[in-house]
Amino acid sequence: MPQTDRSNRRFVLAARPQGLPTPANFRLEDTALPEPGEGQVLTRTLYLSLDPYMRTLMDEAGTSYASAVPVGDTMIGGTVGRVVASKDPRFRPGELVLGGAGWQDYAVADGAGLTPLGEMAQPSLALGGLGMPGFTAYVGLLRIGQPKPGETVAVAAATGAVGAVVGQIAKRKGARVVGIAGGADKCRHAVEELGFDACLDHRDPQFARRLAEACPDGIDVYFENVGGAVFDAVLPLLNNNARVPVCGVIAHYNEDAPPPGPDRLPNMVNTLLQKRIRMEGFIILDHYADSYEAFRRDMGEWIAAGQVRLREDVVDGLENAPGAFIGLLEGRNFGKLVVRVAED
Amino acid sequence: MPQTDRSNRRFVLAARPQGLPTPANFRLEDTALPEPGEGQVLTRTLYLSLDPYMRTLMDEAGTSYASAVPVGDTMIGGTVGRVVASKDPRFRPGELVLGGAGWQDYAVADGAGLTPLGEMAQPSLALGGLGMPGFTAYVGLLRIGQPKPGETVAVAAATGAVGAVVGQIAKRKGARVVGIAGGADKCRHAVEELGFDACLDHRDPQFARRLAEACPDGIDVYFENVGGAVFDAVLPLLNNNARVPVCGVIAHYNEDAPPPGPDRLPNMVNTLLQKRIRMEGFIILDHYADSYEAFRRDMGEWIAAGQVRLREDVVDGLENAPGAFIGLLEGRNFGKLVVRVAED
Repeated sequence: MPQTDRSNRRFVLAARPQGLPTPANFRLEDTALPEPGEGQVLTRTLYLSLDPYMRTLMDEAGTSYASAVPVGDTMIGGTVGRVVASKDPRFRPGELVLGGAGWQDYAVADGAGLTPLGEMAQPSLALGGLGMPGFTAYVGLLRIGQPKPGETVAVAAATGAVGAVVGQIAKRKGARVVGIAGGADKCRHAVEELGFDACLDHRDPQFARRLAEACPDGIDVYFENVGGAVFDAVLPLLNNNARVPVCGVIAHYNEDAPPPGPDRLPNMVNTLLQKRIRMEGFIILDHYADSYEAFRRDMGEWIAAGQVRLREDVVDGLENAPGAFIGLLEGRNFGKLVVRVAED
Repeated sequence: MPQTDRSNRRFVLAARPQGLPTPANFRLEDTALPEPGEGQVLTRTLYLSLDPYMRTLMDEAGTSYASAVPVGDTMIGGTVGRVVASKDPRFRPGELVLGGAGWQDYAVADGAGLTPLGEMAQPSLALGGLGMPGFTAYVGLLRIGQPKPGETVAVAAATGAVGAVVGQIAKRKGARVVGIAGGADKCRHAVEELGFDACLDHRDPQFARRLAEACPDGIDVYFENVGGAVFDAVLPLLNNNARVPVCGVIAHYNEDAPPPGPDRLPNMVNTLLQKRIRMEGFIILDHYADSYEAFRRDMGEWIAAGQVRLREDVVDGLENAPGAFIGLLEGRNFGKLVVRVAED
């Protein structure tokens, strides 16, 4: 069932997940096209971004920066769409815009919530390297990680939307970059296409030892976006005065309660102390006001010059969003995951 | 058996402790007075500092900044002493010096390892508020914690050598200060003598709830020097953009292995993320070159003006050092713990 101009397909949160979501947590509904009110804009979705943070918004607790999706409401998500009708003089029908329509074909939004994109050869990049994930990589690495030439930067989910950009920016800053990814194909891509110095498969039973061998001078910056066993392998390799920007802990998003022991916290805090490590969480929404313009300028130049390469994992059809999202949480995507909801 | 000028009493590490040290881990030996070689100085110990870091140096692994004490060697420690004989032209007999003689009556040291103190009304302060613990409080609070007027600063071991200074400096910077200590006497002292806004007894079964009540606006800076259950009570109260300087984790120094579960690490890292928290370990030895002079000037002024008050817990006699040190690890001291090894 493709997108039409007669009805609006949308995925609502059918039930809160226990652990890893299943297709039963989502329900596809067919509704009437919404009508824009005064100051509002009706958009038609072309691309929907799928990102790990969405999992945390499926839980009742939500996050510090956004409330949970209520059961029965449309799943939230960043989108690239075209304006269908506008009652905001700043937007005209046909225009390409970045917004947060969520998992659906059509949405109305206040004009203030939309960003005009102009015409782009590859509009989905506004959801990836030129959007929130790329900006997350840029801010976390440069503001907190602060890699210096010759230092070693380690990044997990190395071919993911954030990790791939972290590694490529770190290379541009003169660092040695060691990626961590799930599987030989991803690791090969990180080295051969993205220019990482090395990339280790975290599924390898010898992973911890191989990571140590790939980091003979230790690790100065670890961009934390996964947590779990990868963190345990990284921790003993961190150098004095290492920096650990924390962007996410996808390995733990499906946990309903603290995992069983042993308790890894005391060793972690003791390591922070002994090695004078700075660990700092950040939420990208905080940084748009003061850093987004610099990011768009720098990243636009790097992409245009071929210095940052971006791989997308494009899934066709809104109906495939739940399966693709579950795959993302399992590490089955390869590159920035987007759903092509409609042909442009 | 008091100090004499005929022999040198010293405590050596008799055996590495399992968990909390016992008196059997220390052995008192009687040896000949050492002779200073060229460029060396013989000192007689007046005061020995007892500090939690010593526990970590009793384990084989040692720390990143100092090796373990070998079994059979003299226990290390900061000392205030008087020069007995000098083959370094910079030091004269009778002079008061700060050094690291360890748990013994006499020691020889290179002159470069000694700091002249001039004459001091209370020489033991060079081991406390005017020494390493005071400097630790100063650097950790001001460089990492960076409290702003009106913010809430929480500090554990509130009447200890470091905590008491952290709280009093934070008050001078305009922060609201909430201490945490073991027992009603210590809490009363923190509020009535040190000027803290509140102080909670961590042994109170209602501790977590009372701490929350005492921090109605949350916690902006938590000076981490204990770990354990206190940390668990503090974590949910941390505000967005809180800072957590990590100076020590005394609650964990006696652990031989990771404690049983649940695993508290994922929740901690997730909290760092959600609340954009910075957690940073530091080792005070790194900061002498660039901050010690400013500290001595500021702290000297504050103490002279009565703006920072220091309580000492003075134990008489070197023979009582092991018992006093074990008590320190159990929280039985009340103020900066020093051993008066000899009358001046």
